[in-house]
Amino acid sequence: MHDLMPGIREAIANAGIKNGFVTVTSQHTTTAIAINENEARLVEDVKAFLTRLIPPNDKYLHNDIALRDCPPDEPENAHSHLAAMLLGSSEVIALVEGELQLGQYQSVMLYELDGPRKRKVNIQIYGD
Amino acid sequence: MHDLMPGIREAIANAGIKNGFVTVTSQHTTTAIAINENEARLVEDVKAFLTRLIPPNDKYLHNDIALRDCPPDEPENAHSHLAAMLLGSSEVIALVEGELQLGQYQSVMLYELDGPRKRKVNIQIYGD
Amino acid sequence: MHDLMPGIREAIANAGIKNGFVTVTSQHTTTAIAINENEARLVEDVKAFLTRLIPPNDKYLHNDIALRDCPPDEPENAHSHLAAMLLGSSEVIALVEGELQLGQYQSVMLYELDGPRKRKVNIQIYGD
Repeated sequence: MHDLMPGIREAIANAGIKNGFVTVTSQHTTTAIAINENEARLVEDVKAFLTRLIPPNDKYLHNDIALRDCPPDEPENAHSHLAAMLLGSSEVIALVEGELQLGQYQSVMLYELDGPRKRKVNIQIYGD
Repeated sequence: MHDLMPGIREAIANAGIKNGFVTVTSQHTTTAIAINENEARLVEDVKAFLTRLIPPNDKYLHNDIALRDCPPDEPENAHSHLAAMLLGSSEVIALVEGELQLGQYQSVMLYELDGPRKRKVNIQIYGD
Repeated sequence: MHDLMPGIREAIANAGIKNGFVTVTSQHTTTAIAINENEARLVEDVKAFLTRLIPPNDKYLHNDIALRDCPPDEPENAHSHLAAMLLGSSEVIALVEGELQLGQYQSVMLYELDGPRKRKVNIQIYGD
């Protein structure tokens, strides 16, 4: 889990937009965007919970790489897709007088569900 | 799972909007909108996973149609509502120079969780 | 589960905006925003389902309050965070000619996953 708030705040400052909203969208099918508290022990709970809910080593058809039309070194990551589907790929947050309308403990987080590898997130600041 | 990308791309072209964002919102409580890879074997994994996570034949109060104030032919679809709640009803994606800001394998998908029946999805293109 | 539709419709009327969209965003890490049918028996199914999926009394690291840098009266609510993560924190809905583009049974709902306590939701009406 990666806290996106520093990057989002910087993007808002650079855009010079005071009122409108911010959209944050995952650029991958095996990462997710969700809002949570950035607390180290909770991060471990999330990992344990998702591993229990969607065991990576269960049998998934998507993981029979040889039966699919794709490169042979494709990762076996069906569980990552299922987790991303549950967590969601985007959030939208209002921006009022330069302040993101989020509560004290809320951080927009990128969830790495496969990888680790280099990832991209789209942050859009819209308004005036 | 229905891939909405052809319809979304057509709507963007028709709107003539180059920069802004696209919102996609389910119009039903038993369908969901989520972003995933459109891969045939993964679609089967999604079905199996959701059926295991939320067994359609479990006991749900919502399915006691006779005890509710509704028509007697109402479908027994509590599991569909629960799945839609987890998957989510909307996504928002930035549009830059006419290009949706999505990764190579990302498709906005409509998840049919009850039906099949005729369904509506709201696609909004906003910007200039 | 609290039905936000009366508040949302009032906010739209007060804003005097006819065309654009509405964003609804949770202001807490232990509440969620999702769209569902507001049906009393389904609300009970949701409670039972979430309690089974994420048992509140399971062992969670986040609940070892003494090991965290936080006040000693912090609630033990790891399960609330996990549920909020799955349900999501925001939805976006198009507004056309003053009408929210939602289906007949769709209500934007606030899910109280911890509390009960006083909560805030951000509703933004954007457009003209």
